[in-house]
Amino acid sequence: MSVKLNDKYLSGFVSQHEYDCIRPLLTSAHEQIVNRNGAGNDFLGWVDLPENYDKEEFARIKVAAEKIKKSCDVFIVIGIGGSYLGARAVIEFLKSPNYNNIKKDTPDIYFAGCDISAASIAELVEICEGRDVCINVISKSGTTTEPAVAFRVFRGMLEKKYGVEGAKERIFVTTDKARGTLKGFSDKMGYDTYVVPDDVGGRFSVLTAVGLLPIAVAGIDIDALMQGAADARKAYSVNDIETNDAYRYAAIRNILYNKGKTTEILAGYESYARMFNEWFKQLYGESEGKDQKGIFPASVIFSTDLHSLGQYIQDGMRNLFETVISIEDTGVSFNIPYDEENIDGLNFVANTDLNTVKKLAMQGTLLAHVDGGVPNILIEVADRSAYSMGYLIYFFEIACAVSGYMLGVNPFNQPGVEAYKKNMFALLGKPGYEDMKAELEARLK
Amino acid sequence: MSVKLNDKYLSGFVSQHEYDCIRPLLTSAHEQIVNRNGAGNDFLGWVDLPENYDKEEFARIKVAAEKIKKSCDVFIVIGIGGSYLGARAVIEFLKSPNYNNIKKDTPDIYFAGCDISAASIAELVEICEGRDVCINVISKSGTTTEPAVAFRVFRGMLEKKYGVEGAKERIFVTTDKARGTLKGFSDKMGYDTYVVPDDVGGRFSVLTAVGLLPIAVAGIDIDALMQGAADARKAYSVNDIETNDAYRYAAIRNILYNKGKTTEILAGYESYARMFNEWFKQLYGESEGKDQKGIFPASVIFSTDLHSLGQYIQDGMRNLFETVISIEDTGVSFNIPYDEENIDGLNFVANTDLNTVKKLAMQGTLLAHVDGGVPNILIEVADRSAYSMGYLIYFFEIACAVSGYMLGVNPFNQPGVEAYKKNMFALLGKPGYEDMKAELEARLK
Repeated sequence: MSVKLNDKYLSGFVSQHEYDCIRPLLTSAHEQIVNRNGAGNDFLGWVDLPENYDKEEFARIKVAAEKIKKSCDVFIVIGIGGSYLGARAVIEFLKSPNYNNIKKDTPDIYFAGCDISAASIAELVEICEGRDVCINVISKSGTTTEPAVAFRVFRGMLEKKYGVEGAKERIFVTTDKARGTLKGFSDKMGYDTYVVPDDVGGRFSVLTAVGLLPIAVAGIDIDALMQGAADARKAYSVNDIETNDAYRYAAIRNILYNKGKTTEILAGYESYARMFNEWFKQLYGESEGKDQKGIFPASVIFSTDLHSLGQYIQDGMRNLFETVISIEDTGVSFNIPYDEENIDGLNFVANTDLNTVKKLAMQGTLLAHVDGGVPNILIEVADRSAYSMGYLIYFFEIACAVSGYMLGVNPFNQPGVEAYKKNMFALLGKPGYEDMKAELEARLK
Repeated sequence: MSVKLNDKYLSGFVSQHEYDCIRPLLTSAHEQIVNRNGAGNDFLGWVDLPENYDKEEFARIKVAAEKIKKSCDVFIVIGIGGSYLGARAVIEFLKSPNYNNIKKDTPDIYFAGCDISAASIAELVEICEGRDVCINVISKSGTTTEPAVAFRVFRGMLEKKYGVEGAKERIFVTTDKARGTLKGFSDKMGYDTYVVPDDVGGRFSVLTAVGLLPIAVAGIDIDALMQGAADARKAYSVNDIETNDAYRYAAIRNILYNKGKTTEILAGYESYARMFNEWFKQLYGESEGKDQKGIFPASVIFSTDLHSLGQYIQDGMRNLFETVISIEDTGVSFNIPYDEENIDGLNFVANTDLNTVKKLAMQGTLLAHVDGGVPNILIEVADRSAYSMGYLIYFFEIACAVSGYMLGVNPFNQPGVEAYKKNMFALLGKPGYEDMKAELEARLK
């Protein structure tokens, strides 16, 4: 098992009989997934994906990644929400949050089309100057504003630089398999295309072409990533709160939520986990935050944020619980140097590996926060490998589905995301929104 | 006024008579600051700092910044919590979140000593290979574990590379003005030293040498930064809820908190504001999160996170309010290109500046979230300048102090930060913690 749930730090917050009482609810959630009869059951494609994925496309992704690695200095991934968070999370986690600044034999990778900002797009255009560029645009419909704008800009850049024919070799499109204007246009132009499956929502799409192509370009072993997810799928398919840690995690969340712990803080202990935290926040926030309910997902990186949000967690409002991710074998050692001067008084830990110090800091923090009244769920991940990453991704995905069903929501829709878009289109004067425009403008006066 | 509070989007959530009723509480908070007789009044040095700062030291900071710019490719800032968040926030906000990847005539800047990670310190050592390096260690006592370890490592690196004498020219120390082992050691070695004032807590220290030296190295006009803060100080010194926007912001927070809006989401619309959000979270979380109360500070960057936490904000638990920061003049334009194919259907906004699209997206989001039941406070910042940055920093600082006093807490201490440290020291076997060690280890078994 690459991922293990340790519930020692829930003692005093969750009692054994609560696990017993919640079994029937868990069973109900489990059956909705297995029988595919729950709300949103059109979007369960991710469940069997680690086994059933398209092997032919997978092979093409690896070929494309090699081609991209050879032909560019800068690889631009264009997408928003689920179309960028998974890839970015995995790349930063397994490579580095400073990926673009370390020595490597893979291209720099930038994420575009995930905001509406003149500054960020102008800056990226400048960063590309004098460098070879490839792009991967990821959009199911091809009409989402942010990636569509970025695709206009960077497709234009490539066509100007390499000609329409040359650009064709540098544009990789991940979109609907048949419908949509982007698919039609890509076929017409002869772009290499990959599929956003119909039955996998954006936030569950990291193990499809959406995430896999950028992840492969970063030099990450996507076979191992999928194998980890496949093994997790097996481990987490049984309806047993004792042995299925993903189900147990979902049950604990439900128990804590129902006793007023309505904010969950995902805590990592390495700065490379920051974007993974963001991926988690989309997965859970978008799946459960609806119908005026749901656990609010927040995140921190320790020990960094022990000197920031740490005070609040230790001693603020007691509506919090923490889920702590510990990487057991980080793969890198670094001993604290001995210092003859000992000005900082730290010679008692000289020659100690920072991994040891970090582990003890984590244990000290777990106990301190528990003493402060914050239930802590500890998730122990074996190592910082693609295999464990795939395992952990699947852990959180299946737990999210179960948790959403236990909360009584449809974990697979996101009706609230449309509200701002409609208003924006109306204010921008999009044809068809004329009535709404006048009404909104009156409210803004 | 570089910063303006717009309370239009509170309509329906806060009534006029609530402002009237809260005046006496505001007056009480105001008087605790002016008369310096409230809890934590030893730490009010930041109030008059924009006028009363040490001009001689300020001049030395500018000289040191020039020296650093000339003599290194990589500048490492070593500090944790308030000793790094302010500088990093300002540098990313005014320069770029990709500061180390853009073309510039200033050194790359890395932040170290803000975590306990073998991976991050080993990576930075590698990044420094073959490049000239200067460091600025920021620690009042010199004994905080994270920066102390980093200082051991990078001082060692410099002494090995340049010799003890050569390293002296590359080590800049910001610490206590007289006490502490780091000060003593720096004087002995002849390092250039700067002061962490006694009466300014870490989270309020960005406008002291703590923040100013790294900010100046990034090529930011620190005179303008201080002038903005000085003008804000004047504007926010009057006890008037109608004209003092900082006080009005503090009052609104208190009103919303008392009606169950216990989580505040700071929302920026530019990715360069991400670290400013983190600075804000420390400032408010550490100042107010105590005695089992306080608003929980969270953050997002829109439109990015409208495709992530947006669903929750629109439609999840209704214990949220948002504080939205809008940069009115971003200083950069970028028009959406016209596309003959119009595959994305966006030609109705072709040739429109992204700033316009962003503004309308923001207005559409404000209305959508208000309709969803989330009170929104809009803070309009004139531009992306050092002057406005200083103004905004002071706005949040003074509002935080007032807000903390209105909540009935000491806004200037952070007793909860010690809890994990004590446990960590005990587990690490620090002399003097022997009894605690055995007890903790028993609990961890």
